[in-house]
This record gives sequence, structure tokens and C-alpha cells, in this order.
Amino acid sequence: MRFLHTADWHIGKRLNGFDLLADQMAMFKQIETVAKRDKVDAIVIAGDLFDRSVPSEAAVQELRKMLSQLNLADHFPLIAISGNHDSAPRLGMASEWYLANGFHLVTEFKDAFQPVTVGDTQFFLLPFFGLQTARNYFQDEHLTDINQIMAKVVATMQGQFDADKHHVLVAHFFAAGSHRTADSETLAEVGGLSAVDTSILAPFDYVALGHLHNYRALLEDRIKYSGSPLKLSASEAETEKGVWIVDTEPFNVQWHPLHQSPEMVKKTGSFAELTAPQAVEQIDPADYYLLTLTDQGDIPDVMAKLREYYPKILSLSWTRESHRPVTQKLKKLNQLDPMTLLGDFYQQTTGHKLTAQQQTWAQTALNKVEEED
Amino acid sequence: MRFLHTADWHIGKRLNGFDLLADQMAMFKQIETVAKRDKVDAIVIAGDLFDRSVPSEAAVQELRKMLSQLNLADHFPLIAISGNHDSAPRLGMASEWYLANGFHLVTEFKDAFQPVTVGDTQFFLLPFFGLQTARNYFQDEHLTDINQIMAKVVATMQGQFDADKHHVLVAHFFAAGSHRTADSETLAEVGGLSAVDTSILAPFDYVALGHLHNYRALLEDRIKYSGSPLKLSASEAETEKGVWIVDTEPFNVQWHPLHQSPEMVKKTGSFAELTAPQAVEQIDPADYYLLTLTDQGDIPDVMAKLREYYPKILSLSWTRESHRPVTQKLKKLNQLDPMTLLGDFYQQTTGHKLTAQQQTWAQTALNKVEEED
Repeated sequence: MRFLHTADWHIGKRLNGFDLLADQMAMFKQIETVAKRDKVDAIVIAGDLFDRSVPSEAAVQELRKMLSQLNLADHFPLIAISGNHDSAPRLGMASEWYLANGFHLVTEFKDAFQPVTVGDTQFFLLPFFGLQTARNYFQDEHLTDINQIMAKVVATMQGQFDADKHHVLVAHFFAAGSHRTADSETLAEVGGLSAVDTSILAPFDYVALGHLHNYRALLEDRIKYSGSPLKLSASEAETEKGVWIVDTEPFNVQWHPLHQSPEMVKKTGSFAELTAPQAVEQIDPADYYLLTLTDQGDIPDVMAKLREYYPKILSLSWTRESHRPVTQKLKKLNQLDPMTLLGDFYQQTTGHKLTAQQQTWAQTALNKVEEED
Repeated sequence: MRFLHTADWHIGKRLNGFDLLADQMAMFKQIETVAKRDKVDAIVIAGDLFDRSVPSEAAVQELRKMLSQLNLADHFPLIAISGNHDSAPRLGMASEWYLANGFHLVTEFKDAFQPVTVGDTQFFLLPFFGLQTARNYFQDEHLTDINQIMAKVVATMQGQFDADKHHVLVAHFFAAGSHRTADSETLAEVGGLSAVDTSILAPFDYVALGHLHNYRALLEDRIKYSGSPLKLSASEAETEKGVWIVDTEPFNVQWHPLHQSPEMVKKTGSFAELTAPQAVEQIDPADYYLLTLTDQGDIPDVMAKLREYYPKILSLSWTRESHRPVTQKLKKLNQLDPMTLLGDFYQQTTGHKLTAQQQTWAQTALNKVEEED
């Protein structure tokens, strides 16, 4: 069979106050076009369908249109899970009714172990979950590490494997492997806390992940993030967006880039250069701009002045000396994991290292934040 | 055919801080029992399924269980609309998928004119709507009165009538007729603003209404409120709760009371009497109590003292002289419509009557409040 793997739609997200719903609908239409053109047998959405636990009514209406179009109009089977941004009960309210139309949505951990068979493949749908949920399910309070838990999860799923089928895991969590990307931005996200070791996921023919927005966050052959199909923050300005098309027999995985419209455009220059007629004429007012000014002196009210030319500015930075060290420092900080960052900060501020007790507290708090984020 | 008519479940409502979810589930089970015992062909829920636009996750889970039980386990066709307490887009997110299982949920005005046929009956599902929605639909900005609008709505529905079928309207609004109840509480609600005249609804064989919680708010033969199946405020303490069972051929409508558990219990007496052993031994700690004290003097910290005996007190009043005039006045006020109340209050406060302009402003504001409430 052939399926499309996407994730992290974050419907309803606002970007620096800009409403993205129209951009998200345009993105959706591209995904639909790819699915039809490549005649996929199913569409996998690996979590974070909504951006918030309580999406706006407008966001609810947009996602309804998208899912209804794919499932009820185009008749694609849908295979989806809730991510950490979704409210599992709210997203999953109607999941029992979706089944009649081949729309398989799992939002509860306990439902992850009953595979959904489509064509030649068993799909295991593991929604985002908190550690306590897993402890309760396995009735084991000693489970403290995500890798312990995932080993149990995978073993339980293997008990349901039909040897004549292929096996795909759909999940929404941090994963890290030996082929870890060198992308500095994602290191800080993946690096430290509670990352699932990809070696645990080896029993699956393919793992369709959601959570990280960069499709190159993992470079394994058969364990992939799809990334978000739309650029959702300034830090994703230079990340290519797209979807994976996966064939199970023979196994093949193919990246299909999606055109970003509006685009996120980076521009560097002096105020005079950025507002010169030849620069202004290239501005698409629909695009989002990340501007860097090379001027040495201050420019009063510069943001308002730039907005006269660039209506959608996401960020404004400066190359001038007084700002450079901070920028460089931030780049370096990006490569550190959260516990190291916290420890360094504490030492710089107090002159003391974190005690073992403080480290435990911090780790517990960071784990909790990660579960909730 | 035979159907059950209920409404105003308000799942997730809290009563003076008390969580009603368990009571609501017990109420639901009684409704399910009546539906099975009387072998109904469909269940009509006339709006306000949830208590709030954004119900809690727990409330979402409870309503899901109820609807899933009735529709997917018991295989009853469901016929439901959104009320003013529901968020139409949130409640209606999955309505297209519900259809495959005979669950007909209408949350948008535009969908009210395509009847749902079950057995020998065409059901027209009119969700709660704002005046502007109707104006937009009929492309007529001159529609200012609910009766003008309802005349158009009914005429449009009549255009879809199949003469060989019975015709039932399911709706959620204020209605008032010549057989108006003498119940003082509901007069203030129904009396003045934007009440639909029941004569407009004459073309229907039956009108299944939601909105008012008293099933005797209207005493027409074929236009009924079901009321809420659970007592949802202290003012409903003495209102019998239940559901209607409606037969279309031959027409028959039968009231089925539901047992309230926990009950709302009114008790009057002195502090000594209410806390005497023989009184205390009759207290069911699960019940809600409306207590009236006959003591003449003040009793310090009386609420805390009473709660030692009555854990769930909804209201505490006094019969003593100093409080009596206020109580009597409030009873009288209950019988006045909102515009009269406002006019009296303004005159008492300022010494002047409302001007015509002020009356128009007030009426507009009250209409808006009523639309939103």
C-alpha cells in the first residue's frame, strides 16, 4: 500500500498576531492534491491537528472542512492521533462515529495496542501521552524513563503483529537516534530530555512521527518526522516543508515539498537599501518578512516605518556591534540541552553549581514541562 | 412512529460549586431506560446538550458516553440541535460523520430546511440562532421581529412538506401562547422579549422545544417544552422533571416523570428544629437542601454550622420580619417582564421615566442579551 505521512497542522495557530487560517487552508489543498495525484490508500496525520487545547470556533470549522473533504468527499481512509497541542477528549469526542467512514482517530493511550489494518499494513496509533498515563496502564509506578515505557509499548504492540502484514507506528514524541541531524535548532529540542531512542522502534517497518517541525530532525531511513506542512515560526524560515509518500511493498519513502505561499523571506540591508524602490518593488505584501538591519545608528520608530513597506514583519534584528555578541551567544546556547543551560545560568547567577537535589528537582520540572508543552 | 422528546441536558453544569456530572449520568440512564422500555423509534434532544460554549474535558467525555450509548450501542436514531448554551461549531464538528449512524445533529440555521425523515415523520431541525443569521439567510435586513422571521422559517419548511408524512419541528427558543402557564417564574422569562407566538407553529403536528426548563411553561397540546431532565437551579426545586413520549399515528403525547436522585429538598424551621436528631436522621447527604430559618435572632456562622448536618446547601433564607419584605417584593418582581422591571428601576432611581430613545436602546440591548444568554 501507499500512504501519505503528515503531522503538526496546528490549525488555528496565530503567528505574531497574524491569522494563519487562510494559509493553512491553502497548505491543506496542496496536501490533498499530492494525495490524489499519487493515489495514496490512506493519509496519516501524526498529531497536533489543532494548535490549542481549546481551538477557536473558526479553527474548528476549518479543520472540519479539511477532514471532511479528505474523508467524506475524497474517500481517503484517515489515520490520526492527538498530539500534545490537542485536547485528547475534545478532539476525540466523535472518534467512535468516524470509524464508519474509515477515519481512525486515537486519542487515548489504551487504544494504541489494537492495530488498524488498511491494505497490507497494521497501523499502531500511539497518541501523545504523559508518563503517569503509561504507569497507570502498565500498573507499574517504577516506570520513570520514556525509553523503559516505549520498550513496553513496543513489546505489547509486537504481541499484536500479524506476520503477514507490514507494521507502521504513528506517534507524537521526541525521538533521537545515532543519525541525529546536525541542525542546531533541533538539537536543543531533541537532545536532552525524554527522547525516545530510535533503536527501540526497530521492529516497525516505518515510524510516522509528529512533534518536531523539521522533517530532517531525524535522518533514519524508516523513522521520520514529516515536519509541519507550513512554516509556523521564524525559526522555520529556512526549513523546507512537505509530506512523505511511503510505499510498503517494495518499501520506498519519497519526500514531496510543498510550496509555501505566503513565503517567509529573510532580508538583510540598511534601512535605505530595504526601502529603496528596487527592493520595494520585489515585496509581496502577502509574505512574512524577517528583516536584519545593517545600520550603525539608531533609527527612531523604525518598525512602524518598515511596516509601511513590509506589512507582515515577523522579526527585526540588527547586525551592529552592540547587538552582535548577544546574537552569537544565542546561537551557541541553541546547541546546549536544557539541563546544561539551566546549570550554566544558575552558576553564572549565584556562583554555585546546582546540587544533586536541585538537579533532580529541575529535571522533574523539565520533564513535566515537556509533557505539557 | 414513536419518539422521545428531551432537551436542556446542560452537561457539565455546576450548581453552587457542586459537580453534577454523576447526577447527569444517572439522569441519562433513566432516559435510556424509558427509551428502551417504550421502544421508541428515535430520540429528540432539543438543544443545550452542553452547559457552556467550551465545556470541560470531563463534560465532553460524559456527553460522548451518553450519545455513544444511545446511538452506537442501543442503535437509536438521534435527532438533535444546538441550543444557546452550545457552541454550534464545536458541538457540530463531527455532524457530517454522525449521519452514517443515523445521528442527525443540526447546528447551523441554513441546514434547518432540509427535513430528516424517520419512519412516517419529517423532522425539521432548527438550532438556536441569532436574528442576524436569519437576516443574512433570507437576505432581508428589515427582519427585526422573531415572529416575522419564524413566519418565514415555517413557510420555507412548509415548502418541503411531504403530504404523506407527519411534520415535527425541533427548536430552541422562547415561545408563548394563549395557554400560557400561570407559573410566575417562567412568566418573566417568556413574557416579554422575542417570544415566538405559538400560533405561527400551527402547521406542525408537534413542536419539540428546548430552552425553558419547566415542562409546563407552555400548555399547548402539540407544542411542548420537555424541560431539563434534571433540576438545574434552586428555582426548579418544585418542578417535576421528565420526558415526553410522542406517538404520531394516532397522535398521542405522554409525560414520563424522572426520579430525581439526588433530590432538591426544601426545609423550613428554626435552627434547633433543623438540627434536632429526628430531623438529622432524615437527611440524605447526597441531596441538595434549600433551607429556610424561622429564628428571629442572628446565629453567628450559621452556614458553616448547618453544613455540618447538610453538606449540600443550595440556598439559605430567613422568615424573620427584617427579611420578609424583600422576599415578597422579589416574588412580585418575578411576574414582571424585563422592560417593565428596568423602567420601574430607572424611575425609582432617577425620578424620571425612560425616554423613547432610552427604551429603544434598552430593548436593543435586552434583545442582544437574550440572543447571547
